[in-house]
Amino acid sequence: MPFVRIELFPGRTREQKAAAAKAVTEALVNTLGGMGPQSVYITFWEMQREDCAVGGLLKDEPAAPSKGP
Amino acid sequence: MPFVRIELFPGRTREQKAAAAKAVTEALVNTLGGMGPQSVYITFWEMQREDCAVGGLLKDEPAAPSKGP
Amino acid sequence: MPFVRIELFPGRTREQKAAAAKAVTEALVNTLGGMGPQSVYITFWEMQREDCAVGGLLKDEPAAPSKGP
Amino acid sequence: MPFVRIELFPGRTREQKAAAAKAVTEALVNTLGGMGPQSVYITFWEMQREDCAVGGLLKDEPAAPSKGP
Amino acid sequence: MPFVRIELFPGRTREQKAAAAKAVTEALVNTLGGMGPQSVYITFWEMQREDCAVGGLLKDEPAAPSKGP
Amino acid sequence: MPFVRIELFPGRTREQKAAAAKAVTEALVNTLGGMGPQSVYITFWEMQREDCAVGGLLKDEPAAPSKGP
Repeated sequence: MPFVRIELFPGRTREQKAAAAKAVTEALVNTLGGMGPQSVYITFWEMQREDCAVGGLLKDEPAAPSKGP
Repeated sequence: MPFVRIELFPGRTREQKAAAAKAVTEALVNTLGGMGPQSVYITFWEMQREDCAVGGLLKDEPAAPSKGP
Repeated sequence: MPFVRIELFPGRTREQKAAAAKAVTEALVNTLGGMGPQSVYITFWEMQREDCAVGGLLKDEPAAPSKGP
Repeated sequence: MPFVRIELFPGRTREQKAAAAKAVTEALVNTLGGMGPQSVYITFWEMQREDCAVGGLLKDEPAAPSKGP
Repeated sequence: MPFVRIELFPGRTREQKAAAAKAVTEALVNTLGGMGPQSVYITFWEMQREDCAVGGLLKDEPAAPSKGP
Repeated sequence: MPFVRIELFPGRTREQKAAAAKAVTEALVNTLGGMGPQSVYITFWEMQREDCAVGGLLKDEPAAPSKGP
């Protein structure tokens, strides 16, 4: 452990996800300590922009002027 | 924040999800307080009825008489 | 179904969460259609600001000037 | 409640998932106690091997010699 | 893989969770096939009744007469 | 977006989590492309070893000899 879940918009290639998995694993091993790469489990979950909303607007709509969180 | 994750059966239109995102954002801003709409992040995740079970029965099967949770 | 998962910072009262559950349930029933309130399952999960990061900064740190997503 | 979320690789039939839902429901009712089968909600979420990584390697790649977690 | 996430109300002992982990692992190995017990990863996440709602009512409130999903 | 969820055992300091958030954000920005750091949302969720099982054994028990996934 840790288990890492990454939810992202579609469009990345397999190689980009492979690079991300490698880089995130190294990042966690180097910062959290006490574990090796084999303890890091990563899953990618794609969501369409239509299935994500911020400020009540779906992300496939032009964003309202952002007033920040 | 908050992050809101909504898992639902397929079949809703984009407009229904847009309306749901707007309504849920307003509902949370009006009840939880201390934040504006831009702080509410919502994602929709569709699951087939075949991938959901209650009482040991998949939801694409006729439900056993419900004895309530 | 739907299952709704709400991840939020601590500090809300039980009454605020009760009001949020009621309001979100109504919001979903009124917009997604095809279901009654008894089909909406909501869970709240609190996370400390120290356990949430945006732009690489933990949310208990002063935010970098936001350039928006 | 409980809510059970099962993330797995694709390739199982509907009947395998139906059997898994039934068996997991019975397993939880028999071990956790204090609830009936109708209180157990299970969802299945499929992920491609390309979307899962252990030790920094995507699961559609030959695994590095496992040194265990 | 699979990754199994079990969200449940507090109050179970360590031994009940150990029994549940064993039984759920066996249930999945016997029904999904194509994997051994070492491929099954289970996590338990406790939620207070106050943090769970069905039909708009928090689960620490007397449930409204259930009309079923 | 992306939303990143990291489930890990307790025991890391705030500074370790701050370093992990920064490193994971950079890792994702550098590999997935098409976004800046402000689009990366990370949450940490701690679980006790008693609440995690592999191969049917809780992680606070001595692990059975690992035969690999």
